[in-house]
Amino acid sequence: MECMKWTLKRSTELVDATLASVEEIVQQLTTCASLTSTRDPTMFENYWREHGDSCTTTILGWQRMSYYANSKQFFFVQTELDQVIRSLHDVIGNAVTEGRHIVIGVGSTQLFQAALYALSPPDRATPTKVVSVAPFYSSYPTITDYLKSSLYQWAGDASVYRPQSDDSYIELVTTPNNPTGEVRQSVVSGGAGFPVHDLAYYWPHHTPITSPADHDLMLFTVSKSTGHAGTRIGWALVKDLKVAQKMAKFIELNTIGVSKDAQIRAAHILRARIGAKQLFHFAAAEMSYRWQRLRSVLTKGTRFSVPEFQPAWCTFFGEIRSPAPAFAWLRCNEEADCERFLRHSGILTRSGGYFGSNTSFVRLSMLDRRASFEILIDRLEKLQSAVDMS
Amino acid sequence: MECMKWTLKRSTELVDATLASVEEIVQQLTTCASLTSTRDPTMFENYWREHGDSCTTTILGWQRMSYYANSKQFFFVQTELDQVIRSLHDVIGNAVTEGRHIVIGVGSTQLFQAALYALSPPDRATPTKVVSVAPFYSSYPTITDYLKSSLYQWAGDASVYRPQSDDSYIELVTTPNNPTGEVRQSVVSGGAGFPVHDLAYYWPHHTPITSPADHDLMLFTVSKSTGHAGTRIGWALVKDLKVAQKMAKFIELNTIGVSKDAQIRAAHILRARIGAKQLFHFAAAEMSYRWQRLRSVLTKGTRFSVPEFQPAWCTFFGEIRSPAPAFAWLRCNEEADCERFLRHSGILTRSGGYFGSNTSFVRLSMLDRRASFEILIDRLEKLQSAVDMS
Repeated sequence: MECMKWTLKRSTELVDATLASVEEIVQQLTTCASLTSTRDPTMFENYWREHGDSCTTTILGWQRMSYYANSKQFFFVQTELDQVIRSLHDVIGNAVTEGRHIVIGVGSTQLFQAALYALSPPDRATPTKVVSVAPFYSSYPTITDYLKSSLYQWAGDASVYRPQSDDSYIELVTTPNNPTGEVRQSVVSGGAGFPVHDLAYYWPHHTPITSPADHDLMLFTVSKSTGHAGTRIGWALVKDLKVAQKMAKFIELNTIGVSKDAQIRAAHILRARIGAKQLFHFAAAEMSYRWQRLRSVLTKGTRFSVPEFQPAWCTFFGEIRSPAPAFAWLRCNEEADCERFLRHSGILTRSGGYFGSNTSFVRLSMLDRRASFEILIDRLEKLQSAVDMS
Repeated sequence: MECMKWTLKRSTELVDATLASVEEIVQQLTTCASLTSTRDPTMFENYWREHGDSCTTTILGWQRMSYYANSKQFFFVQTELDQVIRSLHDVIGNAVTEGRHIVIGVGSTQLFQAALYALSPPDRATPTKVVSVAPFYSSYPTITDYLKSSLYQWAGDASVYRPQSDDSYIELVTTPNNPTGEVRQSVVSGGAGFPVHDLAYYWPHHTPITSPADHDLMLFTVSKSTGHAGTRIGWALVKDLKVAQKMAKFIELNTIGVSKDAQIRAAHILRARIGAKQLFHFAAAEMSYRWQRLRSVLTKGTRFSVPEFQPAWCTFFGEIRSPAPAFAWLRCNEEADCERFLRHSGILTRSGGYFGSNTSFVRLSMLDRRASFEILIDRLEKLQSAVDMS
């Protein structure tokens, strides 16, 4: 944020700057380029600039004014969005939609909270425990606990959680995982548990699609499938009607539904995505390139390491593919505080501590704009050289 | 909902129906017309059909993809929406914006929860009490308590609430009030309290604008000012930067910001509203007409009564005006369960019991489409005649 303010302020000063200060400003602007974005999927922006004509959204002044939409089941859901989501999953083959109810939310963040609300029995003496195998998505603990609900409570690493016979718990299974990228399955057994599968990254540009996911409650989001994070639309595929209805009740109490303008735009974007095979190829090629670039730099030294992934047959591409996750789970092999070390070199990451891991790890976004990604790679390369020369 | 399903199903059957069944279907469709909407501000739809050309919203495929917007203060707020809100209040004269921070939410419902989060000290042994003078907005108790937060808790009618010296509480002041329409001020004193002013209905078509509202935390919403409920945009005017920042933090944790598509559309709509004086005249004339119609029917008998309001000088219209609230707080003078009685006659309302009052009252929406409103008036008239003839 400081960097953004600096950039805005200094940009206006360029007009009457001396040559020396221009150089300093340009240097600072370049540094800022890789510092200002850590989770924003701006990688896709160029694609949509070139191919986005088919999904321009136009809304007239009098359209979609009502709270109510046209879904027969959930009052605030636009039927066309429900339909296009089903078609998209059919085309990609990444999730079963037959016999599933679709609940729309303001991003999958809201749907995650809707799931906690729907799956926590209201009459328990103690809150339902919420667990996930570490390293887990860093927002899970915060979002679970910020309202100090007595319905549910964060209980940490699922791999060490042992429920008693009637303990109520929810296991969050993120697959492929944020931040590590590996494919996961639920691990907790016993008690009265329910898994929630967060499949935000189960798209062919990030991981081989091995079969349609077929779980009781699955979360997806527009931001990770097309890059349109600002539209704030996510969806849940839910097997049990009562669970879906209670999730929809949460959305009603929380925000009286979801912006219909955003739903209409999401429907346009996802429909364009179905029709445009080249987007999948663009995104997959871009992610493969980035991971190759990253690995080629990291193998030049021993300062950093990232996980290895097993290639697998991808039913969507019809070939064997390597995973190319949205984040690199980077380990500093020599520094105890990897985030701090990288920040000093102009690389902004998120420390492993936030993910239930230790501070020698960081999560590094692979989804920034291409120019920022190249700056990032250059800086990592310089850090490798620096240690090799010492 | 049943009625909607029936309508959809039967509409498709009209093609091959006999004359008798067509009559039955038309009758049922007419009944449904006044039953399907209780809080939807669809009254404005016709206006925007005729005058909405200036606020058509077009969004290209590549635009506004990022989570982040262009506000320097709150990462997810579009600056153009912030600016147009300030201009709107300047033109209407209904709120002070100077020295205020604007926080955008998914409707004022989300901002209400953001305010509870921001104003409840996190370290108290007991939850902050949330109170409002009865009759109060029926969603306040439900929305306060649905997550069983230990930060805050609904504590009922503010007029009987007596805080101890260091009790933490929040008083919700809805003015003009939903459901009763009267102008209100905060009533609780002592303790460590903070008033939240819900000004959703403080617009010149509902109540005379007597002076710019000048409170510490004020809530407004697009749905009640232009009728665009489906866009889901509300705003808070907040004096204290730390409170505004904590509200913005809630919005971030709850939904990672607010749809930028919805923000852009809201900015277009509100800008059109500033430029188009005729909308205020349309809405004010329509509301005056409806209240005159309602009162003229109710004075024909003694079965029902509604509150009387004092006219006052409206600075916006520059004349003395009578309030014309969005809801009529209707009393059945002979029936103990007014909601049930009206439902049997095809009039859907919300019982006084939900508003902290008794069941001889109901809240009746005055904002439905004109045709539905006329059906409503006809039915009330028939009910009056029925009792007079008996």
